[in-house]
Amino acid sequence: MHRQFSLQPFSRHYSHSTHPFLDFLDFDGSEPTSAGEPSAAAHIVVRPAERAQLLDVLAAYKDAQNAGTLLTLTFVTVNDYLWLLRAVSQELSQLGRSCLYYLAAAVSDFFLPRQRMSEHKIQSGKGSLHIEMDQVPKILKPLVAEWTREGYIVSFKLETDEALLVPKARQALARYGHQVVIGNDLHRRKFEVVFVSPKASAPRADQGESVPGEHYEESWLRIDLEQHPQKEIEEDIVSELVKRHQAWIAAASAASA
Amino acid sequence: MHRQFSLQPFSRHYSHSTHPFLDFLDFDGSEPTSAGEPSAAAHIVVRPAERAQLLDVLAAYKDAQNAGTLLTLTFVTVNDYLWLLRAVSQELSQLGRSCLYYLAAAVSDFFLPRQRMSEHKIQSGKGSLHIEMDQVPKILKPLVAEWTREGYIVSFKLETDEALLVPKARQALARYGHQVVIGNDLHRRKFEVVFVSPKASAPRADQGESVPGEHYEESWLRIDLEQHPQKEIEEDIVSELVKRHQAWIAAASAASA
Repeated sequence: MHRQFSLQPFSRHYSHSTHPFLDFLDFDGSEPTSAGEPSAAAHIVVRPAERAQLLDVLAAYKDAQNAGTLLTLTFVTVNDYLWLLRAVSQELSQLGRSCLYYLAAAVSDFFLPRQRMSEHKIQSGKGSLHIEMDQVPKILKPLVAEWTREGYIVSFKLETDEALLVPKARQALARYGHQVVIGNDLHRRKFEVVFVSPKASAPRADQGESVPGEHYEESWLRIDLEQHPQKEIEEDIVSELVKRHQAWIAAASAASA
Repeated sequence: MHRQFSLQPFSRHYSHSTHPFLDFLDFDGSEPTSAGEPSAAAHIVVRPAERAQLLDVLAAYKDAQNAGTLLTLTFVTVNDYLWLLRAVSQELSQLGRSCLYYLAAAVSDFFLPRQRMSEHKIQSGKGSLHIEMDQVPKILKPLVAEWTREGYIVSFKLETDEALLVPKARQALARYGHQVVIGNDLHRRKFEVVFVSPKASAPRADQGESVPGEHYEESWLRIDLEQHPQKEIEEDIVSELVKRHQAWIAAASAASA
């Protein structure tokens, strides 16, 4: 699920603003016609310097398409997102523990309810503009408790004040009872994140927000961008989550055996 | 001048969301290697159905690049935009009447002053959010009166309430004293706009907002999208403006002769 016009898998490498694809296409050697127009037979070719990367991206894109492993769903408003997530998670709940939810969309915390929206464009010239926005409903609660009770749910917590990162992540786990919060600091998120999760021995979150800190564990994941400037931290996040998800499936089988 | 990540000339035909370019690239006929990977010698080719359009777009793009007729300037905030426009218009004022300003950027009417911005991410969980935004300074006033006194200035007025369109356009001309306002209705803007301008006999706008309606003239421009679904109204807007701009240059030469 992605917001319409956000960067997307694969094509994200070719942002029109920062890496425009028209810049690395050329006409091949055939002579232009007298008017300087390309002839009807002209071929469009990729510049040599860009070929290797585009081959990789294109191959990965076609693999995913052919294998049918990527379904993209578009939303625009917070409302769209919440309804879509509910429908998807209710369907996927059939998969039980095999399903992992990676809830990375940076959904806004506040929204303007439809009944308070202006029918027409707001006229300026009347001084300043006052807006009162409501809180977006906390979707994790019904997701965990009702829609997909067995899914492995990974949520994200972005902060700008590093001191709040771990406390807010623990608070979310205590409140919603899901499996992992990945905390990241706005300025350090490209090379450092923290996985916060309940300890195996921890009481389930039905106790609400009173679960004390010793019931959670943190593990930090850092990459060295100076050594590996092309590396993306998401690769390591995903590997770590796959490991944890598999252990979690195995634990359930062991318990029921 | 364009906001970063907005659609841009040429590449706008290939939005990643609605017409993704990766979808019309293919590997050529050479055999994939056993792993299903393209071989190192594979060529990337454009699908036949997309070739003609891409040839046109690419040729036009390269023409503009080679001729040096398109300079793109990026802004992010309203503040960036205002300072950039001031600097550009002050430089271009050397061109006198030869310079036309097509001010189509839909700059917001309100903004949040830096001193009222939160240092850290705003915490939710404290109920609703109140925002008070200030009006963005009206840039047309100094643009017309100070920065580029002789430029031919075209501004835009978008409304959702059609009854306001012509009155608001006239009001802008009365207030700022520039040459043309192009009015458009949000729902009809792809096929209908109105040019509002002062009549040749009209008093200059130094009289402020008291200039009555009979001093302005409107001319409507409409295109028939059912007959010509590919047509874009901007083509006709630009032709009309070129005509008006040339007449306006000629009138000044005649007056001074």
